[in-house]
Amino acid sequence: MATKAYGATAGDKPLEPMDITRREPGPHDVQIDIAYCGVCHSDLHQVRGEWGGTLYPCVPGHEIVGHVTAVGGEVTKFKVGDTVGVGCMVDSCQHCASCDEGLEQYCTGGGFVGTYNGPTADAPGHTLGGYSQAITVSDKFVLKISHPEEQLAAVAPLLCAGITTYSPLRHWGVGPGKKVGIVGIGGLGHMGVKIAHAMGAHVIAFTTSESKRADATVLGADEVINSRNGEEMAAHAGSFDMILNTVAASHDLDAFTGLLKRDGTLVLVGVPEHPHPSPSVGTLIFGRRAIAGSLIGGIAETQEMLDFCAEKGVTADIEMIRIQQIDEAYDRMQRSDVKYRFVIDNATLVES
Amino acid sequence: MATKAYGATAGDKPLEPMDITRREPGPHDVQIDIAYCGVCHSDLHQVRGEWGGTLYPCVPGHEIVGHVTAVGGEVTKFKVGDTVGVGCMVDSCQHCASCDEGLEQYCTGGGFVGTYNGPTADAPGHTLGGYSQAITVSDKFVLKISHPEEQLAAVAPLLCAGITTYSPLRHWGVGPGKKVGIVGIGGLGHMGVKIAHAMGAHVIAFTTSESKRADATVLGADEVINSRNGEEMAAHAGSFDMILNTVAASHDLDAFTGLLKRDGTLVLVGVPEHPHPSPSVGTLIFGRRAIAGSLIGGIAETQEMLDFCAEKGVTADIEMIRIQQIDEAYDRMQRSDVKYRFVIDNATLVES
Repeated sequence: MATKAYGATAGDKPLEPMDITRREPGPHDVQIDIAYCGVCHSDLHQVRGEWGGTLYPCVPGHEIVGHVTAVGGEVTKFKVGDTVGVGCMVDSCQHCASCDEGLEQYCTGGGFVGTYNGPTADAPGHTLGGYSQAITVSDKFVLKISHPEEQLAAVAPLLCAGITTYSPLRHWGVGPGKKVGIVGIGGLGHMGVKIAHAMGAHVIAFTTSESKRADATVLGADEVINSRNGEEMAAHAGSFDMILNTVAASHDLDAFTGLLKRDGTLVLVGVPEHPHPSPSVGTLIFGRRAIAGSLIGGIAETQEMLDFCAEKGVTADIEMIRIQQIDEAYDRMQRSDVKYRFVIDNATLVES
Repeated sequence: MATKAYGATAGDKPLEPMDITRREPGPHDVQIDIAYCGVCHSDLHQVRGEWGGTLYPCVPGHEIVGHVTAVGGEVTKFKVGDTVGVGCMVDSCQHCASCDEGLEQYCTGGGFVGTYNGPTADAPGHTLGGYSQAITVSDKFVLKISHPEEQLAAVAPLLCAGITTYSPLRHWGVGPGKKVGIVGIGGLGHMGVKIAHAMGAHVIAFTTSESKRADATVLGADEVINSRNGEEMAAHAGSFDMILNTVAASHDLDAFTGLLKRDGTLVLVGVPEHPHPSPSVGTLIFGRRAIAGSLIGGIAETQEMLDFCAEKGVTADIEMIRIQQIDEAYDRMQRSDVKYRFVIDNATLVES
């Protein structure tokens, strides 16, 4: 199936229109007409080859929402016309302990297959993502979306930014009576604030940007702390059950571990380009605190997150762009000049 | 009560005989004739002023075992003649959340009072430890010892090395069906191996010393890995439920976090003088792994550990010394030339 897409042929080239093909749906496949695709920081890193290992042509995009246009003969969960989503994964081994537990993101049977840059039998031999008109995905990796149709574009970022924050918040028991910090109010962090608030926790947003103070409150933060203000920080020492740190840039983690209660956890979801300063072991020991990592979320959990967000009315704050604006959007994203997620209107691909 | 002790008057002075006084037992106090006292690395750091903040004269020692010689009028749990122990703490606020939960080591109401170098109303204004003939301690911080009397000297190290390893092993759910690593086979590590084995786990000892390979097996390790052997290490990638790291010297933590299963935890119990290389965030994220710290253990848990060790026949491997040999013992301890804990025969204090 010929499909218009936007991608790059090399790390130093801008994104450009390209024609790709999608496989015809097999018995367990769902064919999706993509309505919108969120723009994740990973897209930029991958397409520009900043992580190494990028396969070209590279079509990024793993915050995909759209409608089912065809299903394979064995597919029972989806039918033509359904509103669906696809996140960061399109396959996994399906038989390791993690896959068995519905935690495909931690697949140890070769690792999950990314929505782009992952291995596939389809041409050109690696997966191509959501900056495209359509995609064909195994039904196990397709999510149902029950938000109102007019919110669809704002649902797209839930597929990566949403689940990346929901999963650790849920895993570390965030809910009523818990004091939770969200570090960094960007694409991930703004979802973290909204979701933690919807979970009923007391939510504190940490930002280094005074301009985001009022915003964070609107997003659902009960309090906002400028993490560069030592006095504000000190007032909260030893008081957090969990802090979700969405900042990937290298920074001082001790400032946050010191704010945790006994048995509290600082959860990192971003890999820094340069290592963080080595965290204080004493701060961990004298409070049985932990620093942990968390990676997106499993498929079952992603469905749970979508249903939770639909019930609570949670979507992302987005700025819609035409695909032709993608390079400009990347530049702005690098300057954190977006509130809080760019989403591509995939209908604009037809013009390319 | 005049009491002979051994301590230092300054960080650059050797330990020497000194006469100290112990308070007469108050209504809730237990007076103990000290039979043996284990020698912990902390003793050396504190008495030599290496951590800063050492108050002189400094009498170290927090692995204390002995017999009750007097009890206050309100004491019901202990009577004269009982075999008892005192560990790293002799007091805490008794009203913060941690104290309420029996986790006095994490007391947030001013912090626990250390068995030496802690604040006290007794002369000389700071606590003096177990390198002494006797000690008077609040009954809440006295432990019952039910090991056979002839094992008493080998029980002393349980009061710090034992509980420091027991507490995290228990907290992180070590038991049958779990694969547990113990890094460093020294004073702490050898207790870790014994206790994890007694808990029924599959225990793997990590050492950099080939000479400890056979020893570790005798201690109870099911397998022994030379952590400098990349091939041996790689064979265990992603397989551990928990790794207890007793090595305080700065070293590469990633070599161990990479061996953890999904959701596994690397627990540190030693504060390095120089920071460890900054741990890989990616290794944490791609497995939801954690690096945590743990500090000794609470009083209730210490009692539980002593009872568990008595039931399982667990004691430390010790080398008994006379108090007059303490400086030599420190030198040997710094060279790791002890299998695995020096214990002072406190009866030798009478000669000083």
